[in-house]
Amino acid sequence: MKKVAVIMGSDSDIDTVSQAIKQLNEFEIPTEARVISAHRTPHEAERFASNAAGNGFGAIIAAAGKSAHLAGVIAAYTTLPVIGLPLKSSTMDGLDSLLSIVQMPSGVPVATVAIDGARNAAILAAQILAVSDDALAEKLAAFKQRIADETRRKDEKLQSSLRRT
Amino acid sequence: MKKVAVIMGSDSDIDTVSQAIKQLNEFEIPTEARVISAHRTPHEAERFASNAAGNGFGAIIAAAGKSAHLAGVIAAYTTLPVIGLPLKSSTMDGLDSLLSIVQMPSGVPVATVAIDGARNAAILAAQILAVSDDALAEKLAAFKQRIADETRRKDEKLQSSLRRT
Amino acid sequence: MKKVAVIMGSDSDIDTVSQAIKQLNEFEIPTEARVISAHRTPHEAERFASNAAGNGFGAIIAAAGKSAHLAGVIAAYTTLPVIGLPLKSSTMDGLDSLLSIVQMPSGVPVATVAIDGARNAAILAAQILAVSDDALAEKLAAFKQRIADETRRKDEKLQSSLRRT
Amino acid sequence: MKKVAVIMGSDSDIDTVSQAIKQLNEFEIPTEARVISAHRTPHEAERFASNAAGNGFGAIIAAAGKSAHLAGVIAAYTTLPVIGLPLKSSTMDGLDSLLSIVQMPSGVPVATVAIDGARNAAILAAQILAVSDDALAEKLAAFKQRIADETRRKDEKLQSSLRRT
Amino acid sequence: MKKVAVIMGSDSDIDTVSQAIKQLNEFEIPTEARVISAHRTPHEAERFASNAAGNGFGAIIAAAGKSAHLAGVIAAYTTLPVIGLPLKSSTMDGLDSLLSIVQMPSGVPVATVAIDGARNAAILAAQILAVSDDALAEKLAAFKQRIADETRRKDEKLQSSLRRT
Amino acid sequence: MKKVAVIMGSDSDIDTVSQAIKQLNEFEIPTEARVISAHRTPHEAERFASNAAGNGFGAIIAAAGKSAHLAGVIAAYTTLPVIGLPLKSSTMDGLDSLLSIVQMPSGVPVATVAIDGARNAAILAAQILAVSDDALAEKLAAFKQRIADETRRKDEKLQSSLRRT
Amino acid sequence: MKKVAVIMGSDSDIDTVSQAIKQLNEFEIPTEARVISAHRTPHEAERFASNAAGNGFGAIIAAAGKSAHLAGVIAAYTTLPVIGLPLKSSTMDGLDSLLSIVQMPSGVPVATVAIDGARNAAILAAQILAVSDDALAEKLAAFKQRIADETRRKDEKLQSSLRRT
Amino acid sequence: MKKVAVIMGSDSDIDTVSQAIKQLNEFEIPTEARVISAHRTPHEAERFASNAAGNGFGAIIAAAGKSAHLAGVIAAYTTLPVIGLPLKSSTMDGLDSLLSIVQMPSGVPVATVAIDGARNAAILAAQILAVSDDALAEKLAAFKQRIADETRRKDEKLQSSLRRT
Repeated sequence: MKKVAVIMGSDSDIDTVSQAIKQLNEFEIPTEARVISAHRTPHEAERFASNAAGNGFGAIIAAAGKSAHLAGVIAAYTTLPVIGLPLKSSTMDGLDSLLSIVQMPSGVPVATVAIDGARNAAILAAQILAVSDDALAEKLAAFKQRIADETRRKDEKLQSSLRRT
Repeated sequence: MKKVAVIMGSDSDIDTVSQAIKQLNEFEIPTEARVISAHRTPHEAERFASNAAGNGFGAIIAAAGKSAHLAGVIAAYTTLPVIGLPLKSSTMDGLDSLLSIVQMPSGVPVATVAIDGARNAAILAAQILAVSDDALAEKLAAFKQRIADETRRKDEKLQSSLRRT
Repeated sequence: MKKVAVIMGSDSDIDTVSQAIKQLNEFEIPTEARVISAHRTPHEAERFASNAAGNGFGAIIAAAGKSAHLAGVIAAYTTLPVIGLPLKSSTMDGLDSLLSIVQMPSGVPVATVAIDGARNAAILAAQILAVSDDALAEKLAAFKQRIADETRRKDEKLQSSLRRT
Repeated sequence: MKKVAVIMGSDSDIDTVSQAIKQLNEFEIPTEARVISAHRTPHEAERFASNAAGNGFGAIIAAAGKSAHLAGVIAAYTTLPVIGLPLKSSTMDGLDSLLSIVQMPSGVPVATVAIDGARNAAILAAQILAVSDDALAEKLAAFKQRIADETRRKDEKLQSSLRRT
Repeated sequence: MKKVAVIMGSDSDIDTVSQAIKQLNEFEIPTEARVISAHRTPHEAERFASNAAGNGFGAIIAAAGKSAHLAGVIAAYTTLPVIGLPLKSSTMDGLDSLLSIVQMPSGVPVATVAIDGARNAAILAAQILAVSDDALAEKLAAFKQRIADETRRKDEKLQSSLRRT
Repeated sequence: MKKVAVIMGSDSDIDTVSQAIKQLNEFEIPTEARVISAHRTPHEAERFASNAAGNGFGAIIAAAGKSAHLAGVIAAYTTLPVIGLPLKSSTMDGLDSLLSIVQMPSGVPVATVAIDGARNAAILAAQILAVSDDALAEKLAAFKQRIADETRRKDEKLQSSLRRT
Repeated sequence: MKKVAVIMGSDSDIDTVSQAIKQLNEFEIPTEARVISAHRTPHEAERFASNAAGNGFGAIIAAAGKSAHLAGVIAAYTTLPVIGLPLKSSTMDGLDSLLSIVQMPSGVPVATVAIDGARNAAILAAQILAVSDDALAEKLAAFKQRIADETRRKDEKLQSSLRRT
Repeated sequence: MKKVAVIMGSDSDIDTVSQAIKQLNEFEIPTEARVISAHRTPHEAERFASNAAGNGFGAIIAAAGKSAHLAGVIAAYTTLPVIGLPLKSSTMDGLDSLLSIVQMPSGVPVATVAIDGARNAAILAAQILAVSDDALAEKLAAFKQRIADETRRKDEKLQSSLRRT
């Protein structure tokens, strides 16, 4: 099975990013987490991205804030799908991170998820691997069922609590 | 080979969206294009998305503008990767489309590309299919080489034109 | 008398949304509250909206945050007036919710109120029902009088407090 | 049958606003159009709003741009549903109009539609009157069917045109 | 001497607005403070503005948040200079208040100050009255000198504190 | 009678700014227009502002775009009311100009009007001078009447044109 | 004398960027222009930046639009001052370019100029070199004098043209 | 060795700005810190900037918030490189400060760094001085190495902590 990489630009992002790692673990997808900065350790970024396909990765999640160049820099060196996770790590509520990540020029896409949407980054990585992995696709279907059931339970709970009042 | 669907909310979006279709054709990926509106033909959206995996699709590109709900609605009914393409079809320069598409709630991701980034939507779809398709992966590597060469040629042209002046 | 539905995308929105329920109760308008997610329980959204008119509803309040598709999805399946209540549930201060809800395409309107304006959503629902309900119209007139009187009392209080200093 | 008023802050807005009038005419809803400015003819705004219910109106559409106070000023003097139509009449792409109209304080809602969404303002007015008017409700259902059919035809046209190439 | 009115849309704004009253008191300008809502007590707004010149006012400060219509509504009924004070009372950090107040249509200006700039609203009112009041103009010159001296003292304090380290 | 200065940062702003000059001429207010740049001719800005009160000016209109520092720089050197006119002269639709002008720090206000609101800048200057000039106050009242009549005529024209169709 | 590099992400940016080259030529600063893309030719970006100091460059201007990573990527590989020039090349009026360039993380600054401010990028590069080059500093002083004189001439021209009318 | 000036518009900005002073001290660059307000002590701003080159300064850091005119006013009076540091001191999250500082008109650049990016302002000043100071250039290279090493250590720590779980 292909692995998923979870790269963050700074270890101060770990609280948000760890939700992605946790979700990937729940799907039993082999995961590697790294602290690589596009600006402070650019050689590591280049090396990691250039070798990612050869090293057995199927998708790369890159999380960064502010001038969030990490996802774009990774995408420059690989043709694997790169998932950009914009972090709310600045004064701009994450709008700078979002625009830095999503507005990529023609030829080099980054698959961008919501600001601080770490869990969705992991689910998207799983969906990508599941295109050719029926067992994982079934896990995703079960997951979708589970969150639907959870919402339905909350709906019932709300209605019964309102009926009592 | 898995197919890619290219869905647009309105046929007035065809000029931008056709760049995605063209790029998919260049990669020789089987493609189906549809006009389905989350708001005007919601039953079609539900039906298409619910059956997409069974019908041989591997990824779905959903292009929409303004309150761009199409990608999210498609993602609600499938666990295939859904690529959201925000269109600059309103007075807000596409910011409304971008935020409507990218800010998805936990559990249901949409892989969002740049505003009007139709070509990148297609490349991302190809990257997703290529995770388990070595021939397509090679096409993507060749494509990456080609756009690098093109940029290098432009670099040389600029330098020689400046040297002459 | 027609009922008003108050639908929220997540039960975590209940604190804000309950102000709408409370205000509807004050107007003695029969109200039903539901947790239905456009993305997690889309079938429920479709079923609820498709049957709302037949089930005696006169207006539907749909509250959601971020990529707030709930109101638009409900409006896709009914011709009842749908009131969109954008919630400040993300990093974007509710601007994403507002734009997702208000920028609907031609043919399918959503009557949008202020970010977190739950009470106003309820008052608007009452105003809609009151178009054909003189008793409710009188309640609304009395309500308008009451909030004017309240403002006048605050005005007098401020002036007398300033006179004393 | 209750009438709908269509008020605009300036006659320069007529090109956009006339789409609302046209749509109301298509629904055969009696309509009156006015040029009333919250800032230049405030007495007319007050008088119109204060008497609107008594004069047989069931809903009021108020269209304005920039510091778009018209809808709020109308709503201050009536308990009829007021539909705010923000116009893109300034340098700010209509964001100023939208925020001026939608962010109403507690107690006085305005039902806001999309920037330049004149047709939707009319459809929303029709939906409001249709709550107690089954004939109009049927017209709205037929209208909904019509725009769905139109989208389906465009879908078929696109698919057949792509099949030919 | 002409009076200055300080009007606020809600008594919850008093903490910010009282800085304006305090500054006017320091300039010994006769001041009246009122709670008048453009939306909840529009008749009071109209009455106050229509009579303001006759009642001895020389300038009116109008403070409001969100859909901040108060300054514009006051300006609609008087030719006195109206100073708009946008308040940060909503989720939008005051941007909605600022745009609602400053983007007035041709013919009816509002002199807008910074978001939550209550003290500056008072200084501007004083500057306006001082155009024809030499004693007040001297007070303003002395005030300007005072804040310059204060800044110079802070400059010296910083430099001496840094010299010590 | 006190004069009004109309200062612009660049002569390329003359088309917009000349509307202010024209309106001041209509009020028969003595006016002087200058091209002074806060960044290119800062000494002229200082000299003009320092001497403005002594030279018989009662108010100063300062028009600038982008990093629009002109109004703030003028206000730094005078206690006369300074009216800031933000120009849409950049890629940011005038939002940069507006924020640069309106967000002045405590102690030094600038009376800001709408983006490109040159005519309103002139009317505000007239309102300021009219506080102590009854003849000018009457002109302003007549002007207010005139724009009201104009709007009323447009209202009648619209209604009669609609009646004919 | 140290050289200045002018790098652009795409040759379609040449119209704006050539203003920087022209201004550097006017200051007689040796200049090299390159088309290097952070995303399409990342190896060239790395190579150029790593060798820039050794190759005699004193400052690097990097111009890019949208997800403008070029300046940040260059700055990752050199300690030379990097001047970021955000281009208005997308639907977002250059706000995306500006935020992508300016919001750099701690440790790796980019000296950002105005959107499309190519000429200022060149002047800033000249100012940097002039810190240790008195002849260049004198050219800059003369340039400053020249633009001041130009503004003064425009001021006189405006005043004399107004005097005639 | 040339000195660096660190000017702040208000002593309340000292907490953020002192990070710049500290970083300059670490590079052993002679530094002077001042409180000078473009609006409250404009004569000091003019005097300081006019004499800065003669007084041995090589670069000036100007930190300000809101209508942040300080950097532009300093740049108006000197041809030294001026580094603008936008502060998040207002309700607008620093966007007003950023736009006020960065959007300078043609002819007078300000080298803008990130909102609250005090440390980067100092590093940029060091980079500017290092263009002609090899010892400082070596310190910057060592600094770059140090922050890379720090990131690498964090990367190793993360990986070993994940391996243990």
